[in-house]
Amino acid sequence: MRVLIVHSHPEPHSFNGAMTDTAADTLRHQGHEVEVADLYAEGFDPVERATNFAPRAEPECFSALTEQRHHFEAGTLPDPVQRELSRLLRAELVIFQFPLWWHGPPAMLKGWFDRVCVYGGLYSGSMRYDRGRLAGVRALCAVTTGSPAAAFSPRGRGGDMATLLWPMHCSLAYLGMTVLPPQVVYGVQGGGLRYQDEAGFRARLEDEKTAWAERLTRLDTESPIPFSGWNDWDEDGVLRPNHPLAWRP
Amino acid sequence: MRVLIVHSHPEPHSFNGAMTDTAADTLRHQGHEVEVADLYAEGFDPVERATNFAPRAEPECFSALTEQRHHFEAGTLPDPVQRELSRLLRAELVIFQFPLWWHGPPAMLKGWFDRVCVYGGLYSGSMRYDRGRLAGVRALCAVTTGSPAAAFSPRGRGGDMATLLWPMHCSLAYLGMTVLPPQVVYGVQGGGLRYQDEAGFRARLEDEKTAWAERLTRLDTESPIPFSGWNDWDEDGVLRPNHPLAWRP
Repeated sequence: MRVLIVHSHPEPHSFNGAMTDTAADTLRHQGHEVEVADLYAEGFDPVERATNFAPRAEPECFSALTEQRHHFEAGTLPDPVQRELSRLLRAELVIFQFPLWWHGPPAMLKGWFDRVCVYGGLYSGSMRYDRGRLAGVRALCAVTTGSPAAAFSPRGRGGDMATLLWPMHCSLAYLGMTVLPPQVVYGVQGGGLRYQDEAGFRARLEDEKTAWAERLTRLDTESPIPFSGWNDWDEDGVLRPNHPLAWRP
Repeated sequence: MRVLIVHSHPEPHSFNGAMTDTAADTLRHQGHEVEVADLYAEGFDPVERATNFAPRAEPECFSALTEQRHHFEAGTLPDPVQRELSRLLRAELVIFQFPLWWHGPPAMLKGWFDRVCVYGGLYSGSMRYDRGRLAGVRALCAVTTGSPAAAFSPRGRGGDMATLLWPMHCSLAYLGMTVLPPQVVYGVQGGGLRYQDEAGFRARLEDEKTAWAERLTRLDTESPIPFSGWNDWDEDGVLRPNHPLAWRP
């Protein structure tokens, strides 16, 4: 299996870094081919903007979708975007490793979607959801939080984790991907340095690494998060009356 | 009233640009003081990373929260962050104008939260939610989408709009802000240039501008989105048994 880990954390010696190392080591040990897209280390620019495209298809008024489609078809996407896109199109499993910052992925990872998931290449009006370009590819969000688990429970003040991850899961399903339940490590603060004691942090890290590695050996047995598809919707894209709200958190 | 518009769109001649111009003109005409933070035009860098801080409080392992708190207290935050923070702390109403890209705000705006909403300055363990630094400040998300309204209805394939905006609304409430219902303009594609005819686009733009301007004249009469607060939670940050799930979409 070809695995892509999209890693989005600014500090290599962070808990997120350890999670990515664990995943890469575990999956390689199982015989899989693993590539890590370390967005911070590679200096990825997550901002979609007019100057990313030259010459412009529409010089007068910048439309990201228009330029993405044009430059995808012409084979003139910016090099970093083409690199990420090639990695993504090779993958059979994509793991997104990131810390939850302000109730969502860091700007670095959000912009990976904005720039890499190009219109006309990875999706179009007829090529999305269960007819998406990445149909059959599995995706999994591996997330760390600063607050403890209770805050992200369904009645927690931080907001239910399933709801907070919903926008990103929607994006993955839009691309056609099969979305596996997230791997969430709660209560990770400041890369570990703000833990009360270093020994406690190390023990916690080992436990989480072990759980993560164990899960990765049995991904094949997991059921994905259910999403509705074209057969469930009317012509306006609304669920038909008797279809359950499978896509809701 | 002092109003801050945080504008996040790469094309000045876009529908988003027209919405921001309408808001600024309308509110100034009413006698309010309006400042526009045009993140793209000002070249804001939305990526929180180690090199943003020098000298580092913790040189060996980068923790964004540790550096944010240290440099806030020392008065040595990066100039663009200090500028945005000063603007935010002056405002009594903050309007976020942005297009919905990949089920959330563009990386440019997501990173405004990551960098500007500094730990130790805008929030801490005891200064958040209804005890937040920005208590009493109103916030409003003004959003455009490419897909039509039906797709973002509660049973729509794009995902319920209330759910998609929930993470950002949670962030605003976390800071203590009073969150007003969003202003959503559906079906805006490619800055208008991909509309079928220019006349139809202009008519639509005028209608939406009028509706937006009218709403802005009566914001004082609006009820905010309800959020729970410290008195509603137990010591773990979980809603007490008899409290309703007011914070859910």
